Amino acid sequence: MKIGILGSGNMGSSLGLLWAEQGHEVFFGGRTTEKGRAVAALAEQGTQGGTNDEAARFGDVLLYTIRGINPAEVLTSVEVLSGKIIIDCNNFEIPEGFAYAPIELSLAEKLASQVPNARVVKAFNTMAQEVFELAPSPLKDYQVSVFVCADDAQARQTVMKLAEDIGFTAVDCGELRHSRLVEGLGNFIRFMIIGQLQNPYTTLSIDVLPAASEQRLGGRQP
Amino acid sequence: MKIGILGSGNMGSSLGLLWAEQGHEVFFGGRTTEKGRAVAALAEQGTQGGTNDEAARFGDVLLYTIRGINPAEVLTSVEVLSGKIIIDCNNFEIPEGFAYAPIELSLAEKLASQVPNARVVKAFNTMAQEVFELAPSPLKDYQVSVFVCADDAQARQTVMKLAEDIGFTAVDCGELRHSRLVEGLGNFIRFMIIGQLQNPYTTLSIDVLPAASEQRLGGRQP
Repeated sequence: MKIGILGSGNMGSSLGLLWAEQGHEVFFGGRTTEKGRAVAALAEQGTQGGTNDEAARFGDVLLYTIRGINPAEVLTSVEVLSGKIIIDCNNFEIPEGFAYAPIELSLAEKLASQVPNARVVKAFNTMAQEVFELAPSPLKDYQVSVFVCADDAQARQTVMKLAEDIGFTAVDCGELRHSRLVEGLGNFIRFMIIGQLQNPYTTLSIDVLPAASEQRLGGRQP
Repeated sequence: MKIGILGSGNMGSSLGLLWAEQGHEVFFGGRTTEKGRAVAALAEQGTQGGTNDEAARFGDVLLYTIRGINPAEVLTSVEVLSGKIIIDCNNFEIPEGFAYAPIELSLAEKLASQVPNARVVKAFNTMAQEVFELAPSPLKDYQVSVFVCADDAQARQTVMKLAEDIGFTAVDCGELRHSRLVEGLGNFIRFMIIGQLQNPYTTLSIDVLPAASEQRLGGRQP
């Protein structure tokens, strides 16, 4: 799969390098050609680097790591995004005392309204960049959830597959509107990571337990 | 510990019976004496049952399962609650299509404003009642989180201990204000349980992964 990274900072470079290791073609975009190329040079496998415009042209799937900035301000033309899958991995800025404002509208929905011809997918907003050091193994053993929302079901499935490729457990969270809930999870986990536990390896997951009637461990029966 | 259950429905009866099994003294309260006594009769160990007023008098820790109703409407006098620990396990009603309103104020904070002399603790709002069938074993093996918020640190510790007693992993979420985040988790997990996976054994947990430098499993090094 051809993946373009828009904004090759912590999240962008980590995810892009992991996808490249899994055999995907990755183009790292930056504000300048030099910045994108410097990240591409970190990869063992062949990747490319250049501007955000070039990354946007290159990818069928784009990772948009540039929080709160309209793509129209980043790209020469947003026409290039038409039909493409855009992963929004962003979270709200942390307010003083983690006193988050109520989520009226998700960042992902706002992004979708700015690029109505693209297929926006919310994902990868509930873990710190450090967790990617553990991907794909031993991460796979920990069953860390990546919560995925999108209005386009095929785009959602594609991103779920990209999450599984690098050792995460993908969780289908339905329509993009549910990004409000998933961004709430992002606010919560960042509160735990930064405010409470002060440990960047803190992750959030759902787990479906075996029903009591299926227990083999001697638990109470219903 | 003396525990009073206010409202002995699904959540109240399940939690109360588990605590009784662990040796706590439990009084099940209901709208009528008969209702409270009927639940108490389900226990193998000695428990008591009666009215909500009696349960409130009895317990040092009270479980308040009566969603969205002011204790002043449930009890003859709220004076009885002074200094007591009140666990709020409630969640918002599910709106059509899981289109939750933004959380301006948590249910727990609202309850605390109604009983300012009590010590309100948010907990047990991120799992379905079916999960209690697995407590305390094999639940303990699954490390299911109970997210606990309270302004009173001792009350928070007491409830964390009560969660651990029955096989959950307690997670300190700080001040009661953070119930807004934790009730957001409740909205999310109910969306997964009822809307997406349709499986009541779906649980939500945090997990702190071993850092890459501590890995013994051959993961990528940072």
